[in-house]
Amino acid sequence: MTHNTTGKGEHMQVKKCEDVPNKPVQTEGAQDVSMRLLLSKEDGARNFVMRMFEIGPGGHTPYHSHDWEHEIFVLEGKGIVSLEGQDYPLSAGDVFLVPEGSMHQFRSAGPQSFRFLCLVPPRGQA
Amino acid sequence: MTHNTTGKGEHMQVKKCEDVPNKPVQTEGAQDVSMRLLLSKEDGARNFVMRMFEIGPGGHTPYHSHDWEHEIFVLEGKGIVSLEGQDYPLSAGDVFLVPEGSMHQFRSAGPQSFRFLCLVPPRGQA
Repeated sequence: MTHNTTGKGEHMQVKKCEDVPNKPVQTEGAQDVSMRLLLSKEDGARNFVMRMFEIGPGGHTPYHSHDWEHEIFVLEGKGIVSLEGQDYPLSAGDVFLVPEGSMHQFRSAGPQSFRFLCLVPPRGQA
Repeated sequence: MTHNTTGKGEHMQVKKCEDVPNKPVQTEGAQDVSMRLLLSKEDGARNFVMRMFEIGPGGHTPYHSHDWEHEIFVLEGKGIVSLEGQDYPLSAGDVFLVPEGSMHQFRSAGPQSFRFLCLVPPRGQA
């Protein structure tokens, strides 16, 4: 169900996250990763972008770095974040900051999907 | 449980959100609202601030406006957001953007606490 309104000349809506398309992440080094773009510039969100990632059992993001940060909130499942060569376990309700410029990877670590919010500044939207 | 490391000269940790102090919101017009400051400048988060709000049954935030936006992700319970005089129901998994400069209020709408993430740019941290 989606409710629409218009305020301040922008298009507003309540989105059910399950209604947002869950698109496979095609980046090299990603395996069984998909992403929902929940809030972005297209919604009028100018300063930061809210995305939801889902990593299937055995899946992972690439081990990589970029010049923007990640703000992470874990929703479901179990996972591991590797940051600069150290591993940290993650589960629902955990919060983590990946600083800009640091090598990092997210991996699923359980029998179910690992699901988390990952917020970035606009230049990290893609 | 908290895991600490140091990378890029910043202090990093996995935080359990339940371990973060849940402080009453004292703003005029707020009733039975509390907030956890999950990620902020103190954590090295320079571009946006992650906060978790909890509104008890019958509680509400003030109906107010300010010159920064809210990015909302609902975690638990049922609530209502009033935006410029229109009400929208919210429940777990819902996403909403409150544009800067718009009048808004969050209210609990069920027998349990209404819990959501509310992200703001740094000037909205307080």
